[in-house]
Amino acid sequence: MELKEFQYPIRKELGDVEERFRDALVSRLPLIKSVASHILATRGKRYRPTLVLLSARLNDGPTDRAVCAATVVELIHTATLIHDDSIDKSELRRGCPTVNCKWDDDVSIAMGDVLYSKAFYILVKNQLYDVMDVLAETTHRMSVGEMLELEKRNDVEISEEDYLTMIGEKTASLISASCEIGAMLGESQDGMRARFSKCGHALGLAFQITDDVFDFVGREHVLGKNIGTDVGSGKFTLPVIAALRNAGSTDRSRMMDILRSGPLMDGKWDELLALMKEYEGIEYSKRRALAYAAEAKELLDPFAGSPYHLSLCSLVDYTVERKK
Amino acid sequence: MELKEFQYPIRKELGDVEERFRDALVSRLPLIKSVASHILATRGKRYRPTLVLLSARLNDGPTDRAVCAATVVELIHTATLIHDDSIDKSELRRGCPTVNCKWDDDVSIAMGDVLYSKAFYILVKNQLYDVMDVLAETTHRMSVGEMLELEKRNDVEISEEDYLTMIGEKTASLISASCEIGAMLGESQDGMRARFSKCGHALGLAFQITDDVFDFVGREHVLGKNIGTDVGSGKFTLPVIAALRNAGSTDRSRMMDILRSGPLMDGKWDELLALMKEYEGIEYSKRRALAYAAEAKELLDPFAGSPYHLSLCSLVDYTVERKK
Repeated sequence: MELKEFQYPIRKELGDVEERFRDALVSRLPLIKSVASHILATRGKRYRPTLVLLSARLNDGPTDRAVCAATVVELIHTATLIHDDSIDKSELRRGCPTVNCKWDDDVSIAMGDVLYSKAFYILVKNQLYDVMDVLAETTHRMSVGEMLELEKRNDVEISEEDYLTMIGEKTASLISASCEIGAMLGESQDGMRARFSKCGHALGLAFQITDDVFDFVGREHVLGKNIGTDVGSGKFTLPVIAALRNAGSTDRSRMMDILRSGPLMDGKWDELLALMKEYEGIEYSKRRALAYAAEAKELLDPFAGSPYHLSLCSLVDYTVERKK
Repeated sequence: MELKEFQYPIRKELGDVEERFRDALVSRLPLIKSVASHILATRGKRYRPTLVLLSARLNDGPTDRAVCAATVVELIHTATLIHDDSIDKSELRRGCPTVNCKWDDDVSIAMGDVLYSKAFYILVKNQLYDVMDVLAETTHRMSVGEMLELEKRNDVEISEEDYLTMIGEKTASLISASCEIGAMLGESQDGMRARFSKCGHALGLAFQITDDVFDFVGREHVLGKNIGTDVGSGKFTLPVIAALRNAGSTDRSRMMDILRSGPLMDGKWDELLALMKEYEGIEYSKRRALAYAAEAKELLDPFAGSPYHLSLCSLVDYTVERKK
């Protein structure tokens, strides 16, 4: 695994997470084995495990429980990606075919369930009941967020507030839980758990807004996935919401027509991008992501001076500065 | 809800389960509300909650914890049905359109996840960690069973042993867990928990084999769902496995050709049924279901004399004698 600089202080634990993650996917079933190999071959940045481990370190948390919790968080995240890709009919992730594309939606549903249930099974086996408390609520919030997203699909009048609730539940909740669990496992002072939860929430919003910006201006070969898929599938995110709000009535109508027309052929994509540029949809979104990132870092001020504080702040900066 | 005779001794608790189940589905989200109303309008027999409650009663278990556990088991069961119907592309259940049919597969995936996660959330909130231990393992087994089923799809050479493993994991595991949880919640004597788990496993096999027989000889208007869908989707169950084993080589080849040909048009369905009758596929399956039911009842012998014992035995008989 290619490590980012901020992951170096916890590289040993990240290696342990990697091993436990691999162990969690072991199965005698050929079909599970194949899908598991594919998952391992297309692994991500281990963003959430890094959050658990750095948050635990900042709060003098015990390493072994943090490693176990970090593995479980990554399993839940992986299950979510598999179900989401199936729902979104995505074909590419991290430059490789998605599970629904390489196999089918049936395998995606069942394999997602295998990973979810394995995550809770590991928590039970390791008697991490306090972590379970947080993650049971978090996975519920994530699934409700997914339903909210389905409900708002094709709704060109979605408000920024609805959007923030949606990404707050669907994405920021697990990022927030990762920070909270890290703090909880440590001997944290009063209020630290709530502080890390809040920090993770702000960071999660910054993370998702940045991702949503990529869907307009990212480079496909860098991202490892197609762009323009959100608008194409009726998912209207902050860049669109902001541009619609800033546009005059004629251009707003024109944008809405384009958004309602489904797959963007015949130069409509370029027209939409030009309108979004004119009305600063991307600019506004980037500013909001930076503001949430600043909020997250401010919440970590009490830890200034610790090398882990430095790493966590670099991770926050990376979240909004990354290219994929 | 229409109650079976064996449900009368626990009708008060079943009413409480009903209320808690309804509460668990409450949401502010319009989409979740609509799907929840549909789920409540098409409710089943509350077979698994009945098992939890009767098993708890037989072991002098506390009512409130049993009611909570029974509700959670029904939530997990409902989540499984929704995901399974989507995987199987089923259009009808209990005489009503399935969630994937009335909405779509996306809503099915997300709503199934909402119910699964709600189930674990309720266990956490009620600190039923011992129940969680059993159900975390059980849901994992169920999902692995689903993957095994996908792996064996279209495999006309599936063995009776593979079939029993598959239904053991996918269906019998939750029925077994329902009995085990009931026993566990009570002040059961040594070994009762394992005995109830074993009883539930045998009962679960009897339950699924009976269901699989319905797919050949059930009446659609009684079942509330289409028949012939298993074979049509490449799911070869015990009646087929047994008939293939008993047939001579010519008829076996003919049956395999029919089974491999996909949707059964042009009189092929009638031809298949005739061959299965000739080679006693249905008869053999019914005998196996009865044998498993007898095994389940025998395991309950130590409780003979209790009115709850009588109810549980009636439920076992009902499992193999029912028409839907």
